[in-house]
Amino acid sequence: MLITLTTDLGTRDAYVGVMKGVILGINPDAVIVDLCHEVEPQDIREAAFLLRVSVPYFPKGAIHVVVVDPGVGTKRRLVLVVSPLGRFLAPDNGVLSYVLVEGGFEAYELNNSRYWLSPVSSTFHGRDILAPVAAHLSQGVSARKLGRKVDGLVSFPIPVPEKTPGSVRGEVLHIDRFGNLITNIREGDLPAGRLWIEVAGRSIRKLSLNFEGGRGLLALVGSSGCLEIAVKNGSAARLLKVKVSEPVTVRAA
Amino acid sequence: MLITLTTDLGTRDAYVGVMKGVILGINPDAVIVDLCHEVEPQDIREAAFLLRVSVPYFPKGAIHVVVVDPGVGTKRRLVLVVSPLGRFLAPDNGVLSYVLVEGGFEAYELNNSRYWLSPVSSTFHGRDILAPVAAHLSQGVSARKLGRKVDGLVSFPIPVPEKTPGSVRGEVLHIDRFGNLITNIREGDLPAGRLWIEVAGRSIRKLSLNFEGGRGLLALVGSSGCLEIAVKNGSAARLLKVKVSEPVTVRAA
Amino acid sequence: MLITLTTDLGTRDAYVGVMKGVILGINPDAVIVDLCHEVEPQDIREAAFLLRVSVPYFPKGAIHVVVVDPGVGTKRRLVLVVSPLGRFLAPDNGVLSYVLVEGGFEAYELNNSRYWLSPVSSTFHGRDILAPVAAHLSQGVSARKLGRKVDGLVSFPIPVPEKTPGSVRGEVLHIDRFGNLITNIREGDLPAGRLWIEVAGRSIRKLSLNFEGGRGLLALVGSSGCLEIAVKNGSAARLLKVKVSEPVTVRAA
Repeated sequence: MLITLTTDLGTRDAYVGVMKGVILGINPDAVIVDLCHEVEPQDIREAAFLLRVSVPYFPKGAIHVVVVDPGVGTKRRLVLVVSPLGRFLAPDNGVLSYVLVEGGFEAYELNNSRYWLSPVSSTFHGRDILAPVAAHLSQGVSARKLGRKVDGLVSFPIPVPEKTPGSVRGEVLHIDRFGNLITNIREGDLPAGRLWIEVAGRSIRKLSLNFEGGRGLLALVGSSGCLEIAVKNGSAARLLKVKVSEPVTVRAA
Repeated sequence: MLITLTTDLGTRDAYVGVMKGVILGINPDAVIVDLCHEVEPQDIREAAFLLRVSVPYFPKGAIHVVVVDPGVGTKRRLVLVVSPLGRFLAPDNGVLSYVLVEGGFEAYELNNSRYWLSPVSSTFHGRDILAPVAAHLSQGVSARKLGRKVDGLVSFPIPVPEKTPGSVRGEVLHIDRFGNLITNIREGDLPAGRLWIEVAGRSIRKLSLNFEGGRGLLALVGSSGCLEIAVKNGSAARLLKVKVSEPVTVRAA
Repeated sequence: MLITLTTDLGTRDAYVGVMKGVILGINPDAVIVDLCHEVEPQDIREAAFLLRVSVPYFPKGAIHVVVVDPGVGTKRRLVLVVSPLGRFLAPDNGVLSYVLVEGGFEAYELNNSRYWLSPVSSTFHGRDILAPVAAHLSQGVSARKLGRKVDGLVSFPIPVPEKTPGSVRGEVLHIDRFGNLITNIREGDLPAGRLWIEVAGRSIRKLSLNFEGGRGLLALVGSSGCLEIAVKNGSAARLLKVKVSEPVTVRAA
């Protein structure tokens, strides 16, 4: 049974390794995949984005554990969300916003300490609660045994592109390792015809098909299915000096 | 069978991947977990600390391989230590100090080259000796076949907090990714009553229960079971400009 | 069945995790090993070097997937190379140069989209083509089903040391995490007798057996089987301020 981990725990410490020890101590047959451990500390939106673009490529039965948890040790809930996209174990802090917006899910507040480590620390529930619960879930323990059904989960407003006839205005959701700017404008949001893309005071005069499609700044539909701004063998983020949330506008020429 | 790896080999090269190739070539059923590969090059104390806080969360039969080995290729020994905490394969250079101090172990010097790669390089015994020995050990080869029983293992003095009535003085053992300062003062070392914590010329007037417990600098018992100094959603290390070994004093107010 | 991944995808995003999701969704029994994900973006030579020093330590049946692909989405081919060293899935861009120079291989252009994800993006063939093909290959799908046999693969000239009686002149191929300079001069290329090594205007008066062998700069035959320039517990790259391709000369004194 597949369990993925998405955390801000980094790789300089052994926090992630310890979570794997807990999981494999309970279910030695679990297959654990690292999605990402370099989420900026406490950056719920970045983790939510990474889940959005990754989860569709995993089997629907996979269990996705998220440890980006600025409220650890306070009254924030830990939840299991069973959705058509997969099963998610996370703090109820908005990190599942893209999962929840798709609907069709059931949520359970983890409150059965029988499936937790003992004692539970006040600062690392990823190790003490989420890891053992993921292992038990992967062994077939039912959602109802793990907690009680709840609703009213925390969600942040997902930035939706503004469409007018002949134009769409969105924003940068994520900047990847290569400095590519990944926007919230999906292929289906793009106006018809020849396109003109504006970002950070610069204009890009066409939509390219791939990284070879032009010199300097490129705009293309990337592997996320969304409009991306890139520089062939370079960094668009460095060239444009932009950050997440930077507006991007596309117009039909 | 579970095998963990703790190294200073980093992730820019393929050194760790190669060790896994060697292990899986011998035992295709081995389950390998990365504890940490970003130990500062040659930092034996950091590796020892990471083992101390991680090993208790793994099954007792797990095999822990440590490759932090400034003396590689010299006369320093490579050892197998079989302890109630687990089985350890490491250079005899102090990296197992926290394991050895618990007692109850047996140690073997790895000297049976039948279980090594051939030839053995002079600079990467992690690949040529420890990885294949771990794989054979995971397949049931006995400790006595791998080497001869030895004693007198190298150990560094473990910094013990100084306790007086109403106070305890310890030091920072580790600074984690978040900039939290993890000390050697265990929960049981703390004086009774309301506490006053001093570090780097600053005073913290109470012990918090979690990261929400106050503004600015916080002191709390962290996931290691020890006193930690933290800043909610910030870095105590950056705020205080301190390093490992910085003294920390706790007094009953 | 063992599948290794060598990419420039980094660890800040979830690109690598997604490839694993695709592979395990098709073949849940695949065992995936990370060789390296921090190849400099688009650095074909670095990836080729890492494969050269790593592949010999894996079982011959292992499948090695390489995603360093500056031409993604253009007409460059994706290939399967079946060689005595192992099986390789990669863009046909020179990244397999060290594999091809050994000869004895067969190459197939991946053109059977039945074994790909659908749709295929224009910027992430690692996820959409190489990962699913690796999974199918690991389940026994034959090379001929995956594509048509081809030749004329792209290869870059491998820098060969120049040997004269009593001397050999090579170059730095790779700089590792520790700042060690790994050259293309193999142990068998070295002249007989006492050696004198020149690099970046500095002379090293002997060949050491290990990192203890001298003060300051050292030259030794490293774990790659090649001449390496190192500094005990320090960085030769930082001391000498050199880069990949720096010439290194060895003379018999």
